[in-house]
Amino acid sequence: MISKTKLLLLVAAVLLFAAAFGPSRTPSSSNVEYNSDAQLKFPEHYREWVYLTTGFDMSYSPAMQMGHHMFDNVFVNPEAYKAFVETGTWPDKTVLVLEGRGAEGKGSINKSGNYQGTETMGVEVHVKDEARFPGKWAFFGFDDEKKPAKMIATTANCYSCHVDHAAVDTTFVQFYPTLLPIAKAKGTLSAAYQKDLEEGQKQK
Amino acid sequence: MISKTKLLLLVAAVLLFAAAFGPSRTPSSSNVEYNSDAQLKFPEHYREWVYLTTGFDMSYSPAMQMGHHMFDNVFVNPEAYKAFVETGTWPDKTVLVLEGRGAEGKGSINKSGNYQGTETMGVEVHVKDEARFPGKWAFFGFDDEKKPAKMIATTANCYSCHVDHAAVDTTFVQFYPTLLPIAKAKGTLSAAYQKDLEEGQKQK
Repeated sequence: MISKTKLLLLVAAVLLFAAAFGPSRTPSSSNVEYNSDAQLKFPEHYREWVYLTTGFDMSYSPAMQMGHHMFDNVFVNPEAYKAFVETGTWPDKTVLVLEGRGAEGKGSINKSGNYQGTETMGVEVHVKDEARFPGKWAFFGFDDEKKPAKMIATTANCYSCHVDHAAVDTTFVQFYPTLLPIAKAKGTLSAAYQKDLEEGQKQK
Repeated sequence: MISKTKLLLLVAAVLLFAAAFGPSRTPSSSNVEYNSDAQLKFPEHYREWVYLTTGFDMSYSPAMQMGHHMFDNVFVNPEAYKAFVETGTWPDKTVLVLEGRGAEGKGSINKSGNYQGTETMGVEVHVKDEARFPGKWAFFGFDDEKKPAKMIATTANCYSCHVDHAAVDTTFVQFYPTLLPIAKAKGTLSAAYQKDLEEGQKQK
């Protein structure tokens, strides 16, 4: 017969195991935090989240010309990714991170095209928090100092552009190649995006 | 006093919890599998692994000209990523995945530059398995059918090029912007890569 002491030790060991490897590991790298001034703290671990896409020299304005090439990488917290795969849209507490990164050309054995350099060029964060933000979503911008950031005012262009053109729930899922087919299949594409698509086809 | 029956029930509940949320979740998405002909099965879950970098129209040959633009995205299994962050090099069982993806230009509200399309253009896998491969590492290529793939013969150029030019343990860490500074700090850069760097500087 197993003694009560041994059983208690076993419970303690299994609880320790569960504490070390259970779901409690995830939130530290997935959730965002705010300071006492309601500023968002820099999401330090976003590079370990789920990758969505990369743009190269993308611009929403035809007049925009940069003096250099750059990449934009997009990441999302793993819980939100899993929910999107199941439902075709974002749950509350979704955090999307857009990382700007300098592009290198010739270097090492690369002869043409571009690869990503070690220099980051700002990080933008798009957070869904229905209780915290009246419009459900908010934008925050970080420079390379990574200091806590104030919410970007809702009068900024980014809010209206995302509402008017984004494919799913004010996010640019049309540029996230593995998620766009899921949104199509689940029927979660926005009316605004579908209107843009129809107008684009008329112009052809 | 807690009864032995209650304690046993508690043990069972905690074990179930640990089984559901413990590390056993991870291997299914992180490890690769081989069929009975030693062919590698397509790593279905690589998009949920850790992202390393993206290239745009990269080429190691100056003469190479493609008729279209494309992106290359690189992912690694999470356990190997964690080990690299700690040690500056790759552990046994590391799996790197290179995903080719078609580039789109104008589309939706994008006016210039390129974004990633839903079409993949082949996947290459680089696996470290010291017991399985005499040279420790092996390459495998998948087309969009994703059928199990035979190991690429070690006479192929990819092996010699990776040995002669890769920054860490025959992998192109010089193109992985968050890992290159770690390798520098840990002193794990290869002699071959450092020789390339010196020759590059002489030519300037």
